[in-house]
Amino acid sequence: MILCVLTARPSYSRIQAALEALRPYPVSVLCVGAAAHPRYGNVSAQVQADGFPVLTLPGIWDDNHPGGMVQMVGHLTLALGQELRRLQPEAVITIADRYETLATAMAASYQGLPLIHVQGGEVSGNIDDKVRKANSALADLHLTATAMAGARVRSMGVRGQVHVTGCPSIDLALRVEDGDVALPGIGPEVDTRQPFLLVLHHPVTDEWQSAEQQTRVLLDAVMDTGLPTIWGWPNVDAGAAGVEKVLRVAHETEAPIRFVRHVAPADFIRLMRRCAAMVGNSSALIREGSALGTKALLLGRRQQGRECGPNVTWWDREPTAAAIERVVQQPRPEPVTLYGDGQAGPRMAEVIQAWLRRKAA
Amino acid sequence: MILCVLTARPSYSRIQAALEALRPYPVSVLCVGAAAHPRYGNVSAQVQADGFPVLTLPGIWDDNHPGGMVQMVGHLTLALGQELRRLQPEAVITIADRYETLATAMAASYQGLPLIHVQGGEVSGNIDDKVRKANSALADLHLTATAMAGARVRSMGVRGQVHVTGCPSIDLALRVEDGDVALPGIGPEVDTRQPFLLVLHHPVTDEWQSAEQQTRVLLDAVMDTGLPTIWGWPNVDAGAAGVEKVLRVAHETEAPIRFVRHVAPADFIRLMRRCAAMVGNSSALIREGSALGTKALLLGRRQQGRECGPNVTWWDREPTAAAIERVVQQPRPEPVTLYGDGQAGPRMAEVIQAWLRRKAA
Amino acid sequence: MILCVLTARPSYSRIQAALEALRPYPVSVLCVGAAAHPRYGNVSAQVQADGFPVLTLPGIWDDNHPGGMVQMVGHLTLALGQELRRLQPEAVITIADRYETLATAMAASYQGLPLIHVQGGEVSGNIDDKVRKANSALADLHLTATAMAGARVRSMGVRGQVHVTGCPSIDLALRVEDGDVALPGIGPEVDTRQPFLLVLHHPVTDEWQSAEQQTRVLLDAVMDTGLPTIWGWPNVDAGAAGVEKVLRVAHETEAPIRFVRHVAPADFIRLMRRCAAMVGNSSALIREGSALGTKALLLGRRQQGRECGPNVTWWDREPTAAAIERVVQQPRPEPVTLYGDGQAGPRMAEVIQAWLRRKAA
Amino acid sequence: MILCVLTARPSYSRIQAALEALRPYPVSVLCVGAAAHPRYGNVSAQVQADGFPVLTLPGIWDDNHPGGMVQMVGHLTLALGQELRRLQPEAVITIADRYETLATAMAASYQGLPLIHVQGGEVSGNIDDKVRKANSALADLHLTATAMAGARVRSMGVRGQVHVTGCPSIDLALRVEDGDVALPGIGPEVDTRQPFLLVLHHPVTDEWQSAEQQTRVLLDAVMDTGLPTIWGWPNVDAGAAGVEKVLRVAHETEAPIRFVRHVAPADFIRLMRRCAAMVGNSSALIREGSALGTKALLLGRRQQGRECGPNVTWWDREPTAAAIERVVQQPRPEPVTLYGDGQAGPRMAEVIQAWLRRKAA
Repeated sequence: MILCVLTARPSYSRIQAALEALRPYPVSVLCVGAAAHPRYGNVSAQVQADGFPVLTLPGIWDDNHPGGMVQMVGHLTLALGQELRRLQPEAVITIADRYETLATAMAASYQGLPLIHVQGGEVSGNIDDKVRKANSALADLHLTATAMAGARVRSMGVRGQVHVTGCPSIDLALRVEDGDVALPGIGPEVDTRQPFLLVLHHPVTDEWQSAEQQTRVLLDAVMDTGLPTIWGWPNVDAGAAGVEKVLRVAHETEAPIRFVRHVAPADFIRLMRRCAAMVGNSSALIREGSALGTKALLLGRRQQGRECGPNVTWWDREPTAAAIERVVQQPRPEPVTLYGDGQAGPRMAEVIQAWLRRKAA
Repeated sequence: MILCVLTARPSYSRIQAALEALRPYPVSVLCVGAAAHPRYGNVSAQVQADGFPVLTLPGIWDDNHPGGMVQMVGHLTLALGQELRRLQPEAVITIADRYETLATAMAASYQGLPLIHVQGGEVSGNIDDKVRKANSALADLHLTATAMAGARVRSMGVRGQVHVTGCPSIDLALRVEDGDVALPGIGPEVDTRQPFLLVLHHPVTDEWQSAEQQTRVLLDAVMDTGLPTIWGWPNVDAGAAGVEKVLRVAHETEAPIRFVRHVAPADFIRLMRRCAAMVGNSSALIREGSALGTKALLLGRRQQGRECGPNVTWWDREPTAAAIERVVQQPRPEPVTLYGDGQAGPRMAEVIQAWLRRKAA
Repeated sequence: MILCVLTARPSYSRIQAALEALRPYPVSVLCVGAAAHPRYGNVSAQVQADGFPVLTLPGIWDDNHPGGMVQMVGHLTLALGQELRRLQPEAVITIADRYETLATAMAASYQGLPLIHVQGGEVSGNIDDKVRKANSALADLHLTATAMAGARVRSMGVRGQVHVTGCPSIDLALRVEDGDVALPGIGPEVDTRQPFLLVLHHPVTDEWQSAEQQTRVLLDAVMDTGLPTIWGWPNVDAGAAGVEKVLRVAHETEAPIRFVRHVAPADFIRLMRRCAAMVGNSSALIREGSALGTKALLLGRRQQGRECGPNVTWWDREPTAAAIERVVQQPRPEPVTLYGDGQAGPRMAEVIQAWLRRKAA
Repeated sequence: MILCVLTARPSYSRIQAALEALRPYPVSVLCVGAAAHPRYGNVSAQVQADGFPVLTLPGIWDDNHPGGMVQMVGHLTLALGQELRRLQPEAVITIADRYETLATAMAASYQGLPLIHVQGGEVSGNIDDKVRKANSALADLHLTATAMAGARVRSMGVRGQVHVTGCPSIDLALRVEDGDVALPGIGPEVDTRQPFLLVLHHPVTDEWQSAEQQTRVLLDAVMDTGLPTIWGWPNVDAGAAGVEKVLRVAHETEAPIRFVRHVAPADFIRLMRRCAAMVGNSSALIREGSALGTKALLLGRRQQGRECGPNVTWWDREPTAAAIERVVQQPRPEPVTLYGDGQAGPRMAEVIQAWLRRKAA
């Protein structure tokens, strides 16, 4: 049995197409922390609906301080160590770079369970950049989204094979067609047939103390543009309490913004297809954005160093409202295959199965 | 305050000369796990005797299974996260590659405490090789023992500066002069003025289930040589229970071998200077051995890939007793400066202080 | 140094008067979990303002399931064990019966640190009843609020002395004079000079799955009475997510209710003095309510078995709105000294100091 | 499924006869900590041989300090919380009073899993006495060994039924007939057909710092008697390191004593039947001793307050060697049914099944 560990909702769209392609090979999904928590979108329900056996280790450490990340990863290490020792999967898949993922990587590699890491070799700011490299260091099979990422993993001198497969999130994005979206959340309705902004801005854990202030500035800028706005709720990371406070106050004081916690992945792609521009620091601006040709204004240092397509404009010290308006005025960029051509899932499935066959031989 | 975290006794000799050279800059040493446990040499007492303020988080997870390494590192992550959050040191030093060290690396880096990693960029077998790379991935300043190690860390694309300083353990080794040793331990006395073997063989955590058998084979070979033998007790790692059982039975049945748990570092160097040959898989054979010109027969895959001086002979499928005798017959090799010229401590202290000054500026 | 461990905000008012009376004896307060979390009223700030040295172990395990209580208490046991081992206080105070308190009791008693338990011997529903008894089992000095509670602790055959001191929360309540309150929170203003309801209803952890439904019924009943209402936010316990959802929706749909998260303790007493009636399952209805003569309608099984004064009416299957109205119509009951005469703090301080003197002798 | 949690080897003989009598009702045994560790007798192998499904959570926290008991119980609370949440047994059985047992009691009771406590209501010294009471506080069904123990549990005001069933260890003891024993261990052989001493002395956790000294005194006394001696290895508790050191040195210096780690339960009963006297502080002296009529000299405060039959002599300040000799000279006492008549197992099984039926109804 191959066990895929999810630590947060967005990770699922980065692997789902590969898990589907692996069938009928037995695959289970273990949802831990935020990935099994109703307040953070409980992706386990969706995984189950997609027909994969689901296990959960629920609960998150709630502590608005970077020290809380250490407690959470320690807790998860104990829990995953116990669960993997019991399950003895023939391989464990871990995805990307959230701080919790090192718990998966240690729980597998220390016990000699083969570890597959997806999305190594990319570059970003934040602690994520270090965690991603540490995951590569511990993994035995490396499946990267871009050619440059593959080259970076190889130059680390890692154990095991490195394959450039593209990112399965692009498979999903290209499958979803345009359509109307019934928006969840609170605040005024937004007519997605008219120009609107889509904001996705997470606290940066190594700047967590300024997250509240950053959000306040961004909120003002967005309101200055006068455009209808859909604003996604931030991740549960150090600094989130400050961000949430700003957003709650904005809602209480009737800011003309639609706040949404969890949008179904397909609906999120539809919003990305239709919006006048995305604004924020989520990797979706870069990743799915490049494949969809979504104009995007990228803020801050969270994604610093990540390979971008022509859809991305980096904020460069001009007033944010003006920067947003400039991006909105740009012509629509061409979609590019930088992060995948839509066939990453089948490609990953093939590599994994060949690798398992060789190990068994 | 700079905080140096020790997870096992041997780590101390790999940093002691640097800590001394840092004075009068405030340095504290936090001894965790085996480094604070009487059964494993409680290095904290020695650190205190050397005049450094010592903190401890004692206790080890005793579970003769690789899954126990996961529980221990999870436990330490919680404990170190709590302690570092309280102490808020201006930098944290972590050493080498034991599996526990990732707890230190996460506890510091996740909280934004600057992390100094010593001994990155080397290559070995075992899980250590992965852990060492993961430590490099999380660290902000990298102090390597060899030029090749420095080049490897740089090619990982790590954050922060990389400096080749040499290993402080060589500073210590070159300071110690020849002399008699009052041997601790159990079993017959060994006259160190006559030819004798010095065995240091640890369980290999990814081959832990064969550790007992490996030890039995080695024990027979050593006894076949007929040479008086001093045998060091193994590390507390998965597989240790089997190894210890073999050694205890050997002692009960009056094998002509002196078993020693903890030799004072200076005395250990004296034994290395005098022995006819070292046998085993400890990195001391390679590291201090290269600087002292100690003939060494290296067994198994634990050190696979590590840069070696001319003092090392790799076992190559011949009967082990014959291999030992062949090594004993070799002429004494020249000492080399591969792992340091004896000035690593002062060099590290200088680099660290300059780096802290720049951060403060 | 005497160390008082707080696990939740309300515990502080149950000990504050005793800590004040202990001065100038050195007393420190260690705030853990919800007691150090901004979202749950961060009582540590108030403790500090009162001039006590404060230590914190922040963070709570967020998992809307009773299994999360186990994870939290396990986590706290590790953290408190480490912190108490470092601090070596001469005595540790733990209060009442929340599930987290067993972590304090184990961390102290297992290490031989003398443990003082406050509020033993009472009876209630919920897991609290068992935890309170287990705390008594582990403690070395027992300070109870009522005579009957003292008798119950004695009949357990516990180690150490049992003293009936009264509850320091009554000291505080009797000190606070009537006055206007500037209400925090969200929703319509409430004129506290006119009749209003004060609701305080927590999820019952052994009925956590029906907490959401219970809250919905109570909300409807309160709105049926047509009285202005101030509603306190529930504790962070299993079931809280469902309760919070109901309250949030009520607010979104403009229920005429003032929702308040944290009221300053003195202001809360003022609200209790003025309200037409309290409704819910908080022990404040019974405890401070008896001393203030606050009419109270007690719901459910959370307080089942607790000694009550004449101010309490137990709900008995009639429609809740009618029950509330009936209580509101009652004449104001006489205050009674069931839970204390206002001198519990000095009495506790005296007992503790005599006990410490005897131990030292 | 009923889940019985074992934390140490001796617990198994205190429940085995009941588990057998419960068949064919589905019963599983979860061995944690020392109960799953080869060095401490790994009782899980024997449970499996007896035909019960076995689960394990192996590993122990090795830290010769009472603070280590806190770390171990915290660790077990996390692990058992996770495992019980997954298993959802219809009832959980916990036995006696070791400090680890509170982890089982919290993991079950906090999650609303019905908890059966065996051996409540007894009295002893040590932290065990407090833990036993705390277990009673958290349990829902109480099965006691003696009538007085049952009365004590009732007077605690615990939830749930209390039944006096006797102790299943007596069922086992009475089943075993006299016979020769092939002694495991190290040291000289002992002819069990000639008079010999049987020593079983554990460190007292609240006197852990004097455990080494206590052992040294006892060792001298035993050797002064000149009687052949079989000495059982102590439990893994705070203070054990000092005790083990004394015993190891005694063996190294050829003390005429047979040291045994784990004797099969039936063989242990045979030794109890034949020995001239037992010496130490184990509850076996009192429990099985009373049923077998084994002369016993009870030392120290570990069992202080426990009900004893006529076979027990309490040490009372005379020189220990003289006290031993006096006990050896006594006539053989009559066996008594204080701790059971040999039918405790079937009685417990009946009570448990009736209780489960009522809960299901």
